[in-house]
Order: sequence, then structure tokens, then C-alpha cells
Amino acid sequence: MRIFALTLLGWALCWGQATDECKPSTLNIPGAQYPCVYSDHRATFQVTAPDAQRVQLKVVGKTLDMAKGEEGAWTVTTPPLVQGFHYYTLVIDGATVADPSTRTFFGSGWDNSGIEIPEGPEVDYYLPKDLAHGQVSQRWYYSTVTTKWRRCYVYTPPDYGSGKSRYPVLYLLHGWGENEQGWHIQGHADLILDNLIAAKKAVPMIIVMDNLNAIKPGEDGKIFTSRAFERPPAPKPGQTPAPGPRARLASFTGATFTEMMFTDLIPMIEKTYRVLPGRENRAMAGLSMGGFQTFLTTLANLDKFAYIGGFSGSTGAFGGPFDPKTSNNGVFADADAFNKKVKVLFLGIGSVEGPNTKNFSEALTKAGIHNVYFESPGTAHEWLTWRRCLNDFAPRLFQ
Amino acid sequence: MRIFALTLLGWALCWGQATDECKPSTLNIPGAQYPCVYSDHRATFQVTAPDAQRVQLKVVGKTLDMAKGEEGAWTVTTPPLVQGFHYYTLVIDGATVADPSTRTFFGSGWDNSGIEIPEGPEVDYYLPKDLAHGQVSQRWYYSTVTTKWRRCYVYTPPDYGSGKSRYPVLYLLHGWGENEQGWHIQGHADLILDNLIAAKKAVPMIIVMDNLNAIKPGEDGKIFTSRAFERPPAPKPGQTPAPGPRARLASFTGATFTEMMFTDLIPMIEKTYRVLPGRENRAMAGLSMGGFQTFLTTLANLDKFAYIGGFSGSTGAFGGPFDPKTSNNGVFADADAFNKKVKVLFLGIGSVEGPNTKNFSEALTKAGIHNVYFESPGTAHEWLTWRRCLNDFAPRLFQ
Repeated sequence: MRIFALTLLGWALCWGQATDECKPSTLNIPGAQYPCVYSDHRATFQVTAPDAQRVQLKVVGKTLDMAKGEEGAWTVTTPPLVQGFHYYTLVIDGATVADPSTRTFFGSGWDNSGIEIPEGPEVDYYLPKDLAHGQVSQRWYYSTVTTKWRRCYVYTPPDYGSGKSRYPVLYLLHGWGENEQGWHIQGHADLILDNLIAAKKAVPMIIVMDNLNAIKPGEDGKIFTSRAFERPPAPKPGQTPAPGPRARLASFTGATFTEMMFTDLIPMIEKTYRVLPGRENRAMAGLSMGGFQTFLTTLANLDKFAYIGGFSGSTGAFGGPFDPKTSNNGVFADADAFNKKVKVLFLGIGSVEGPNTKNFSEALTKAGIHNVYFESPGTAHEWLTWRRCLNDFAPRLFQ
Repeated sequence: MRIFALTLLGWALCWGQATDECKPSTLNIPGAQYPCVYSDHRATFQVTAPDAQRVQLKVVGKTLDMAKGEEGAWTVTTPPLVQGFHYYTLVIDGATVADPSTRTFFGSGWDNSGIEIPEGPEVDYYLPKDLAHGQVSQRWYYSTVTTKWRRCYVYTPPDYGSGKSRYPVLYLLHGWGENEQGWHIQGHADLILDNLIAAKKAVPMIIVMDNLNAIKPGEDGKIFTSRAFERPPAPKPGQTPAPGPRARLASFTGATFTEMMFTDLIPMIEKTYRVLPGRENRAMAGLSMGGFQTFLTTLANLDKFAYIGGFSGSTGAFGGPFDPKTSNNGVFADADAFNKKVKVLFLGIGSVEGPNTKNFSEALTKAGIHNVYFESPGTAHEWLTWRRCLNDFAPRLFQ
């Protein structure tokens, strides 16, 4: 029945196109046929908007006009999309909204639609398999620094529940506009670790996935609460324009998250879970802005962390050209001292994202700083890059 | 700064209305000022749709036209809304979509917007407090019955991690069109139990929150995958019309979920967690269709359950008038035998939902069947009713 319906769908869409079947994206709500993905990575999107004048799709940095068909259904088939997980939105007569046909995913500060362009049928490192599974737990805790309740998610490995062992901990951060759910919902961090641990490629570890948004009462939290598709209103005559995202980021020190992490998060985790003590059992990594936060936190506190990972998250210098002698308060100036302390300094990036991270890695190497450069082939600034980064980074930890 | 902005907002909205402040709903995305709620439970909604011809709000069973204002912003202020958690949607030129200003919540088969009309500042039984917290864990397991991977969430009480004790288990189901995330996201089941356990009103227990959708290969899963706002296309001449939701529900036996529960879910839980054995340590409850499923499963398996809860979930007879001698395969025919087996039979309902559940409770009482009737004052078929049901039901379990 289902195969039959999909076959019909394939016929209906195949004018001038490949004749293979368009398969519903794995991120669709139950029963939704659209968006669907062809084997060559083209995708067809459809939304019902009977009275709209113009409907557009925004995906992977492009805006495409959709065409009106029967019964108010607007449709577009894209050119082949880069593989991976992509947030996307619809614009219906000027309103930016999520597509009601997919589950939504918190990114860019709101609940976007998502589509998954699969890597290929043989790729299963982030899928559930018939092996021992850890679990991801939601945990509430009160922050004395922000004076608010916070929620984090904690991965415990498969053998955690039954044993008495203590485990090392990876603190793992999402990116700008995302939240503490990103790593286990979009990133499948739990399944990646289950699979690595079962294959004995990674040691069993705890992963703490917190929210990088942390402001004290009275601090400006706009960096965390603006949505990408909204522009601040134009200043009226005589008014000063509001600072844009770039200006806000340049002034971002990450100090409040760092303080909250040391004051509230780490003590709560070490009190609640069976954790191995000390810096050699503590890692921190993050993607994009979470990588930026990771470097801000760890490079200023090498007495507390022995493993550092930036996934699409650092090009080295914050606010100027990289100089190994002076950047980051000179933490790289004494290469031998740095290499003795930091067991792994990992720099990951998608190959489509440009050369800046590679340049940073090479500058570090030239300055004598040991580091791992990982490039995800054919992926962009999105979750497939970061899943692959975690899959490569986690086996290097606590060995 | 924030108070100042809200004060300005209050002024802008108060033509002819109460002059109190309109507070952003607690379910909004970070930074979003709309929707906001007045102290008299009116709410103002706003969405930007510069080129739309017509924008409507659908909330609590009503459709309201929104009015276009400056810079493409469409706004409406509702009459006072019934307190509680409400799914809602926008209709933009005929397209039914979520409001991009709120977090989304899986209900009616897709990710809707949500608004919370608060009970009042003194009500905090489902809010986090400074006391010991349990945790909610995501767990993957493979179902041999459905031949698919499934995901459930498991609440373990605050003292679970540190001890060796075994605990009784409540299996708790969501409603039609929702999923396994409903009870801890919309329902705050974990916080309700944390608060009850800290107050020594409920015994520490494990709560298993699974997905009631369960189909075997080849079974028709349409009952789980149709979205409330979509109608099946009209049949073409000569075609048989597709069965509507009511016809599909009448033929629903819940048999596959029951089989999956006994074959896969309960064995996985009892193997993975420190669980007390036997029927007197096992409860099942659910809301709406989950209550329906609970009655289908438990009444046919009283050797496995001693506690039964239906929250807006049963009016007694499935497919006909209630007769204590014959309905539900005659399970109520011998009142003494039933009362000996079932420690608690709980029937909860919101007072706005009508008299059918009360009538069922009274018919049971007349037939000599002990039961608890719980009516949530002033609430509808929504999550506030079900939070209150759980808050009343949980203390009655395993005592």
C-alpha cells in the first residue's frame, strides 16, 4: 500500500527528472509524504496554502519560489542538496514559518523545520543498533549565578546503571540559537557513543549537554534571544542604531557561562553522578558558538580541562589576527607547557565551510602546538559535520 | 530594561482594555513578547506577515481574525481564555502553521504552538523547586512486535541513583496525536512527582512514558498519522470514501500496543531498572486516547495491574451504552472480585468537558465498583486537567 502510493508519487514528480522514488525525509511527522528526498539528493517540498500569493522555501542558504498546483498545494523540487541535517523555513506571503510537515528543531532561536539528506544507506554510526544502549537524562538544577532554574541533559553509558564504576566527563555545547536538546535530538550524541563504546573505540564516558545561554540579572541577553530572520527596526532620526549580531558577538566574553559552569554545573554533576575527579578526566567541546565558548572557558582554565574540541567553532583569534605568542592571553606562547597539559586539541570543520580552521591548525602546528585537524568531506555548517566531529573526537578522549 | 519594555507594551495595547501588563507566555521562545497574557486571561497574539490577505488565530476551539497593523504585524487580543495549556495554530492565507514565536509541542500529529494561561501565582505543584529532583531518561529499545526501534522516557525518583532500592512502576500514556514526550514536556510529570515525593504525599516510583502508537507490519496506522486539520480528499466518482477518524477509532482495539507492552516494553523496563515485581507494584494510566488504551489493556489483564487511571479517557463502554454486567467483557460483573483485585480505579475529567465521565463513575458506584471520581475545576480537554489528574492520582498509588 505504502510502496504503491510512493510509486504513484514518483510518477507524478518525474517529468524531466530521474525516475527513482522520492522518499519521505526521516524528520517528517508521522504520515507526511513531503518533504521527500531523491537518491541524487534533490528534494521536493510541499505545503497547502490555498489563498497565498507567494510561497517560498529557504534551505541551505537559498530561497526558491514554490509553484501553486491543485487544491492549494505549493510545491518545489530543489537541485541536489548537500548531505546532512538542514534547518529550513517557508515564507508564506512574507511570514517566516516552519513547515507543518516536519518535526521542529530548535535553531536560530526558534523551532525550525528540518530535513535530513542521508549520507548513504551504509552509514549507520548515528543510528540505533542492536547493542547495549546508554541513556540521556533530563536534569533540572538551580544556578546561583544566573538565579534561574536550568535544564541539562546527561548521557550515561550502557553499563552505568548496573555498576559502581566512576566515569570521565565530556561537557558538550550546542551552537548559537540552539539549546541543550540539540546534541541528542539533532546530533544523536547518545547513539554515536553507544556505537563507539560497543565497538570498543571509545571508553565509556558521561556527556553533559547544557545550554550555553547564561546571563546574570541585569546583563544584556540579546545575543541569545534574537532570531536570525528578524532584523532590529531601523533607528528613528536621532536614535543610535542597535548593535548588530557581529558587534554583539565581538563583545561576548563567555564569562557568565564559565562562572556558572564552575559554580553550579560541574559541582551538581560531580555530586549527582559517579564521576572520576580531576582535569585528566574532564573534556569540553562545542560546535560553532559552543566551540567559541569552549575555547574561552578551557584556554583560561587549563588546570581544569585536559581535552578541548572545537567543531566549526574556532579560527583561533578572537577579534584579531592569530598570534601564537599573544592570542588567547598567550596560552600558546610556551608550546611545550601547553602540549604537556592538553592531551587533545581538536579542530573540526566541514569541507564546505572554508579554509580558516585549517589555517588555524597549521598556524598552531607551526608554533609547535599539537593539534588534530579533522575535515568532514562535503558537509557544511550543520549537524552532519558535528556528528562526524564527535564520532572522531570521542575515541581520542580519556585513553 | 525588560520591565520598561513591557510597560511600553502594556500602554500600546490598552485601548479600551484593562490596564495591567500583558506578560509573555512562559512557552514563548527566548525573547518573544507575543503571545502575552493579561491577568484576566485575555491574550494578545502577533505574527509578522507583510503580504498576507488574511491571518487567523485558532485557539481553544475558536477561530479569530487578526488585524493588520504597522510593518506587516497582524494582532488579535482574545476574550479571557480558560486556564491551562493550549495548543494553537495560525492560518496565513489558508495555510495552517505554527506561530514562530512559541516553542512547539507535538499534538494532533504535528508540532503546534502552545500557550500557557497560568492557574495563578500561588500554584506551583508542577514547577521546579529547591528540593531533590529525579530525572527523566530517554531510552531506545527494539520492539519485536512492531519490528521497529522505539523511544520511551523513564522518570526515576530522586533517590534512585544513589540507592539499591526497588520501585513500583506507573506506565503513563499521552493522548491521540501526541507522543512519548508529552508527559514530561507538556505535562511536567517529573516535577509533579518530585514535589509530591518531597512532601511525602506520594511514594517514590518509576514512571514509564511510552508512545501509544504501535502497529505491526501491514497494519493500518492511519489512526496515528492523520493530522486534525487535514481532511482526506473527497472520493472520486465510483470510489469508496476513506473511513473518517470516528470510524477508525471504533475499530481500534489497542491490541498491538498491549502485545508490544507485554512482549517488549515491560521486560525491557524490568531488566533495565530496579523494579518491584508483581501486579501490586504496577499501575497504568493515560489521558484521552491513552486512557482508552489503558482501559483496553488493564481490564483485560487484571492479573498484571492493580491500579488503573483514565484522565479524560473513558466514559465506560467502548462502542455502546455501559452495562456493568456485559461491558468490557463482563470485567465489572462481579463487583467484589473486581474490588479485591483493583486497588484504585481513577476517573478524572475537566469540569468543562461534560458529564459523561461522572455518569460512568456513578454507574460503576451503583454497580458496587469502587472508584475515584476526580473533577478538575474550570479546565477543558487539555494538559492542565491531566497535570491535576496526575497530582491527585499519584498519591493513591502503591500505598
